[in-house]
Amino acid sequence: MNRRKFFKNGALFTLGTTLINPIDTFAGTPNAIDDFVVKGKKAKNIIILVSDGMSRGTLTIADQFQYRKTGKHTNWIQLYNDNKVAISSMDMSSKNSVVTDSGAASSSWGGGVRVNNGSINYNEDGSYNTPIWQKFKKAGKMAGCVTTVPITHATPAGFTAVSNKRSDMPGIAVQYLENEYDVMLGGGDKYFNAKKRPDNRDLYGDFKQKGYQVVNTRDELLKADTTKPILGVFGEEDLPYTVDRINQPKLAAEYPSLAEMTEVAINRMKKNKNGFVLQVESGKVDWAAHANDIAGLIHEQLAFDEAIKVAMDFAEKDKNTLVIITTDHGNANPGILYGSRANVEFDTLQNYTATNEFILNQIKGSDNIHRVREIVKQYNGVDLHKEDSTELLSYYTKLSTDNEGLYNYKKLPYKAISDIQKRYNSVGWLSMDHTGDYVDLAMFGPGSENLKPFMKNTDLHYFMLQAAEVENKA
Amino acid sequence: MNRRKFFKNGALFTLGTTLINPIDTFAGTPNAIDDFVVKGKKAKNIIILVSDGMSRGTLTIADQFQYRKTGKHTNWIQLYNDNKVAISSMDMSSKNSVVTDSGAASSSWGGGVRVNNGSINYNEDGSYNTPIWQKFKKAGKMAGCVTTVPITHATPAGFTAVSNKRSDMPGIAVQYLENEYDVMLGGGDKYFNAKKRPDNRDLYGDFKQKGYQVVNTRDELLKADTTKPILGVFGEEDLPYTVDRINQPKLAAEYPSLAEMTEVAINRMKKNKNGFVLQVESGKVDWAAHANDIAGLIHEQLAFDEAIKVAMDFAEKDKNTLVIITTDHGNANPGILYGSRANVEFDTLQNYTATNEFILNQIKGSDNIHRVREIVKQYNGVDLHKEDSTELLSYYTKLSTDNEGLYNYKKLPYKAISDIQKRYNSVGWLSMDHTGDYVDLAMFGPGSENLKPFMKNTDLHYFMLQAAEVENKA
Repeated sequence: MNRRKFFKNGALFTLGTTLINPIDTFAGTPNAIDDFVVKGKKAKNIIILVSDGMSRGTLTIADQFQYRKTGKHTNWIQLYNDNKVAISSMDMSSKNSVVTDSGAASSSWGGGVRVNNGSINYNEDGSYNTPIWQKFKKAGKMAGCVTTVPITHATPAGFTAVSNKRSDMPGIAVQYLENEYDVMLGGGDKYFNAKKRPDNRDLYGDFKQKGYQVVNTRDELLKADTTKPILGVFGEEDLPYTVDRINQPKLAAEYPSLAEMTEVAINRMKKNKNGFVLQVESGKVDWAAHANDIAGLIHEQLAFDEAIKVAMDFAEKDKNTLVIITTDHGNANPGILYGSRANVEFDTLQNYTATNEFILNQIKGSDNIHRVREIVKQYNGVDLHKEDSTELLSYYTKLSTDNEGLYNYKKLPYKAISDIQKRYNSVGWLSMDHTGDYVDLAMFGPGSENLKPFMKNTDLHYFMLQAAEVENKA
Repeated sequence: MNRRKFFKNGALFTLGTTLINPIDTFAGTPNAIDDFVVKGKKAKNIIILVSDGMSRGTLTIADQFQYRKTGKHTNWIQLYNDNKVAISSMDMSSKNSVVTDSGAASSSWGGGVRVNNGSINYNEDGSYNTPIWQKFKKAGKMAGCVTTVPITHATPAGFTAVSNKRSDMPGIAVQYLENEYDVMLGGGDKYFNAKKRPDNRDLYGDFKQKGYQVVNTRDELLKADTTKPILGVFGEEDLPYTVDRINQPKLAAEYPSLAEMTEVAINRMKKNKNGFVLQVESGKVDWAAHANDIAGLIHEQLAFDEAIKVAMDFAEKDKNTLVIITTDHGNANPGILYGSRANVEFDTLQNYTATNEFILNQIKGSDNIHRVREIVKQYNGVDLHKEDSTELLSYYTKLSTDNEGLYNYKKLPYKAISDIQKRYNSVGWLSMDHTGDYVDLAMFGPGSENLKPFMKNTDLHYFMLQAAEVENKA
């Protein structure tokens, strides 16, 4: 088979004609990656892990948070430190913007073509690009996705579905059924449940009909029979934030972690003799960044980091698995702020035990400022100054008459609380939305020796096909 | 010679005992770097280029700015694209803070030890760490620094001097004389000029006495005799911002560019048979970030990029030069903001022809809003909305009575104009100060094959000594 056909353009590799025989080409001893895997091999499996909306600052903050607590780096940074991975930067621009949304971002990887923000593998001329997990299915591999937001959300959809509107999640759920992916785990009951779908179709029933196990709780997932395909849907929309989950036993009992879902997905699909492809997304790193919610952000990134460990533990043993760790765009570019109290203030984050969403939901318009102080003290471990409690409460009293000062569909003063917290924790935010920063990417395993220090998002589509020697057939 | 003595700790390399014979160790064909240089060689020369205070967003914005204008990436990103460099991330924490200042940052590289913010190679116990350029001088190499801020400023000082106070620039200037560095080019006349120094010492005279050529204009620099040591001091404090320099013929005639200074420094020092070490700093990337000055920032980063080209042109021909390209910390984490008009608005930056400092100095408290609009239109190519002109002017009328609303020693409303510009150019800023983000680093040439994907700032000290096989002697 002529491997050159996998190249969309000459930009991706600079290896020349020796590509025909990968063993010859890759026989050297790349220095950037230690000999944890045999080089020049075909990747039987691919696991791509996406921390959605992770700015460089988010990676740094989570690592510093953990390092200052335990003296150990995150798994992501420790892979760098151990020289186990090749790294790169990636331009995630969409077809119509230097700042992508998650739909166009995932489509660039999943379809190999830049599309407009808001669409899933859908081109302006009305045509669609075949999603990459379908190409791998055709090659005999199992394929699946795992996420903490609706399983029908943009990032899994970009690898598995097509749509001119990413918001058509009920339609995307039907495509999952039609394409028979092997493991799909995430949130989004409302897109499968007959009582909640606009068309009242019982999608769970349809999946069962096709031989799927359908699981809706952590227990059911952990007991699932991994010899059969699995649809796991946990919660109406998204799964709880990790910082809330680990501090509320009820949530911890009901919902699986991203790492647990990743493990089940691998256990299901590793049984396939032709291998598998798996996408793992920490969708709520992005949501926390949109909310400027620092505890949400850090613990979501650390939950992602645990999923990295699950993937790496498998890949290091397996030796035939390409692991790709990345993000689809920056969001809010958080940063630890300069100042004489930076360390002391940053370390107060160790005491945050709830998301801002949870905290803000505890406050009522009828509370007084002492009660507001009490609530923030309980979940942030910090004594608010009087003016800060007063300010925070004011959004609730305003709320009783109008919505002024509120920025979001949940009608909670996310920005106000994060502006207040910043005075105590020395972390700032650029915005409450995506940024155009080139993103970080790391790779481990067969194929990673071909990684260049910079790539376009669409290059990654061909890179994955190439690494697994899967033909680029629609 | 036992190369292992260069290692401060085992963390930097993981190569084990084969290090004794570098030729054996490095004889493979690293994939991450193409064969532009012979591997496993000793670095005769080192050029380290520092874009001071460059967040990941700054690198991205400058690259997207240039790419959208010319269809070509910056030299920095093109080196990635051409697979010519190894890349890494670096933790720049100082001894007392996760967010460093430039003094502690440069000292970590220059002295191999983390020191407190505000000091230059000075430890809490009162001891000093020998600056690395002195170690290289001792090994028979020439050593120099080039910058666009005072040559006595933190970044060059960290490689060449010691001080418990980075602000003691008159004292640091004297250390340069005593240590007889071979080329020192930058701003800071007030630290050398007898009429301006607190001690009225004629430092220029002292340098001449020691055989230095002293040059104070671009013409003098370009005509300098490169067989002799050179002290070049241009301007009282800093050199002009590049965007002002390229748009004002008088400034362009008087002041050299960073690339021109770099070229002279290389031409002077490449004559030394034992090689040379050179630090090149774009100091005003940091200053522009502190001022949230987007045109200042972009064009300063692009001027740095031209200096990269000068260094790379030399190194690719020379084949014995290690080139290190990095930054000392993030600053203000600028980012292109999400929105349907992101591209159109970002592209208006192509019309900015002056720094905000220049623009703000054109506005007077006696102006009316039509005049303010006219000025902004002239230098930003943008028609301000009436309320924006009114807001901007208000800082000047306030100024006539008090300083309210002004944030900086120059008493100009930097933040106000950048907040206004953001509504037209879709670039946001996190803060007006440093951030703790892990920073980007790229390497080319002999030694770069040893780069790991992550390092501590202090590792770089030992890395440079190791690459050049220079003994770590105080």
